[in-house]
Amino acid sequence: VRLYSNWASSASFRVRIGLHLKRLEYEYVPVRLKMEGGDQEGALFSELNPQQKVPLLLDDGVRVAQSLAILEYLDETRPDRPLLPDDAADRARVRSLALWIGCEIQPLNNLRVERHLTSALALAPEAMREWRRHWIAVGFDALEAELGRSRETGQFCHGNAPTLADCFLVPQVANSQRPNVALDLARWPTVERIYRACLELPEVTAALPASQPDAPPPA
Amino acid sequence: VRLYSNWASSASFRVRIGLHLKRLEYEYVPVRLKMEGGDQEGALFSELNPQQKVPLLLDDGVRVAQSLAILEYLDETRPDRPLLPDDAADRARVRSLALWIGCEIQPLNNLRVERHLTSALALAPEAMREWRRHWIAVGFDALEAELGRSRETGQFCHGNAPTLADCFLVPQVANSQRPNVALDLARWPTVERIYRACLELPEVTAALPASQPDAPPPA
Repeated sequence: VRLYSNWASSASFRVRIGLHLKRLEYEYVPVRLKMEGGDQEGALFSELNPQQKVPLLLDDGVRVAQSLAILEYLDETRPDRPLLPDDAADRARVRSLALWIGCEIQPLNNLRVERHLTSALALAPEAMREWRRHWIAVGFDALEAELGRSRETGQFCHGNAPTLADCFLVPQVANSQRPNVALDLARWPTVERIYRACLELPEVTAALPASQPDAPPPA
Repeated sequence: VRLYSNWASSASFRVRIGLHLKRLEYEYVPVRLKMEGGDQEGALFSELNPQQKVPLLLDDGVRVAQSLAILEYLDETRPDRPLLPDDAADRARVRSLALWIGCEIQPLNNLRVERHLTSALALAPEAMREWRRHWIAVGFDALEAELGRSRETGQFCHGNAPTLADCFLVPQVANSQRPNVALDLARWPTVERIYRACLELPEVTAALPASQPDAPPPA
């Protein structure tokens, strides 16, 4: 298994968590983002993935783009240490939580959207910061309402073992703690509790941005 | 099966296509959007779904939010007339196409984002129109590159039977043809061809916004 990734990409972060939770060996291929001057690699990479986005998984000729599709593919082809529960209703809840983050929060705060807001719409840095904080806060309000009231929530998003939903939750909460967002998690106690529980897992710390080979050296 | 839907919601539209492709009977419960003055129903509905978004599926006590999670749940619990192929690599491609639309295109053009751009960022109508056109065009470029070059593309997004990817493609292309977007599909010939093929299916026409009980009467 080969993973095209970037240390700072939160969608790559999701897949790295999944790979480590499933204890799968993988080759890490760093892809530099455009902002890092990665144009040449960008051109080569866009041949592989017309979406021009990391993560991309290559598995013996099979090419999978999109973090959720990658995690589902890994779970179907390597059923050990599953990321999804067995029961259809449980699976639906886990996917719904992951999609809430993947479709409603993260797309509004990714790099290409921020670049467009800054260049085409001339958004000032302070307004950009407010934009980020707004969408993450709205998203976490709904996530907290669901996680906080449900009997299915355990130590993790669904029960007492990490699932695909936690693969999505960790990178999103980590984003909310960046200096240019800096949300106070006290407003979302269940979200914060699960995030802290995940950070206790060695599979999650191995997947952290700072642990990747293409991360910049610590200052 | 009960579907909370709104005639104009493109995520509801995806699920309606899936329900009709699978020939499942369902009860249609219209949820008025806030812009339609649906506040009271909104409050009741947010008890059911903290995400406060349609579609929501209720199935004998099981409650599923998020269109992709709903379609996966229906396919797992009613395996007849599958929306996903059998093979893991094929399933990954179908999911990847659906997620490209669901995570990278539609989230930037939905109602709550447009409302925020208009109110908080004071975006003028012409700039709003450019925003819409920009993200759909960028998204369709990648979609066309993938669909146009792949041997797996058939009469539909994946082979010669409609899948979950087509459930996502149809509403997104329909959005691009709204008067306030009005993109010329000639730039994306494969996307357009598949869209036209889908519109030939009675399962798709039954799911069209204008065919829903809560659609406004024709002018």
